[in-house]
Amino acid sequence: MTTEAESQHTKDTNKPGVPHGMPVFGASGRRIIYDEDGKPCRTCNTLLDFKMVTHAQKDPKSSGSSTNPALSSTAVSAMTIPMKKAAETTQYAKDEPPDVEQLGKASWSLLHTLAARYPNEPNAEQQSDMGQFISLFAKLYPCWFCAKDFKKYIEENKPVLESQEKFGRWLCDAHNSVNVKIGKPKFDCNLWRQRWKDGWDNVDDKLKK
Amino acid sequence: MTTEAESQHTKDTNKPGVPHGMPVFGASGRRIIYDEDGKPCRTCNTLLDFKMVTHAQKDPKSSGSSTNPALSSTAVSAMTIPMKKAAETTQYAKDEPPDVEQLGKASWSLLHTLAARYPNEPNAEQQSDMGQFISLFAKLYPCWFCAKDFKKYIEENKPVLESQEKFGRWLCDAHNSVNVKIGKPKFDCNLWRQRWKDGWDNVDDKLKK
Repeated sequence: MTTEAESQHTKDTNKPGVPHGMPVFGASGRRIIYDEDGKPCRTCNTLLDFKMVTHAQKDPKSSGSSTNPALSSTAVSAMTIPMKKAAETTQYAKDEPPDVEQLGKASWSLLHTLAARYPNEPNAEQQSDMGQFISLFAKLYPCWFCAKDFKKYIEENKPVLESQEKFGRWLCDAHNSVNVKIGKPKFDCNLWRQRWKDGWDNVDDKLKK
Repeated sequence: MTTEAESQHTKDTNKPGVPHGMPVFGASGRRIIYDEDGKPCRTCNTLLDFKMVTHAQKDPKSSGSSTNPALSSTAVSAMTIPMKKAAETTQYAKDEPPDVEQLGKASWSLLHTLAARYPNEPNAEQQSDMGQFISLFAKLYPCWFCAKDFKKYIEENKPVLESQEKFGRWLCDAHNSVNVKIGKPKFDCNLWRQRWKDGWDNVDDKLKK
């Protein structure tokens, strides 16, 4: 799911979208992707690059990244060379199809991230789109008994789509209902934003071991 | 995404759905989930259990699993004890929100598995549902530039939904178009069923190292 815009960014350094004074490339060699409001996009960058650029935002002098052309050039080379090698390779790992646990983990990741990027004040179309997506997800989910149970859950607990916070909490509750059924610990839904949206950096976390 | 049916199965050993002579429990202690046609469900079981039960299907004598009540009881205990421990735990790992790579990997896993479970001969409603799901997925995908590119891709390459094989190949091609853009090796789409549906066990695989 990483696509054209990103590869175009690597070719076109003048492409708009990099706020003044902010890094162009990340430590991974990828171009940093910013949201339309100029903030670095967490779900569009690798975690390494996102951490680097948010650190740079707080203290530009201490950042390892730069808009310095020399550094950018090195970063591009570092990215381009392994890319060529990879493209020439015809062998790949024989990974097995996802099992029920991998499929569940992957699907919860997508759903919670959808909530993390859902608008704070969604309009009628956005609420309708997300409601329809959740409904189709429950209908099509490729583990039949999980799908059946999820469908039952959303019949009894209609998705709450009036705001990002409400949708995030609804999903957290839905996930917890499954956690309880299969004997996993419940997640504290007061922390859903740290887990799925903002990260833990600025949290006074008493749960830390 | 593992839910009520599974936990109910652990309580009700007489629940229908286990074909005659087939194992009730897997090596993981979970109850084996079968499809409506009596075949073990790959996406509803752990890989370990699925492999165990398909092995048992070919050669019942050599299987480590059994419908023997003593073994089933051991398996249930093995599952129940750690489940209780987990439920009492209030600490959990402070995982970071998914980055662009984790989100991409998770999403491709879900999409390819949707294709793997898509009907061979889908009716009009099934085709419409999947078309709508793909369209909403492209609209809502929580990395904005990836979503934009995927939307463009499906505008230029309309999803092919007439059969499982066609949809599976269409998705494989879509994934490859991204692989090429980011310098990853292309996947041989003749092998999409092995990678995402059937596994590699019975394949004369010349790519094996």
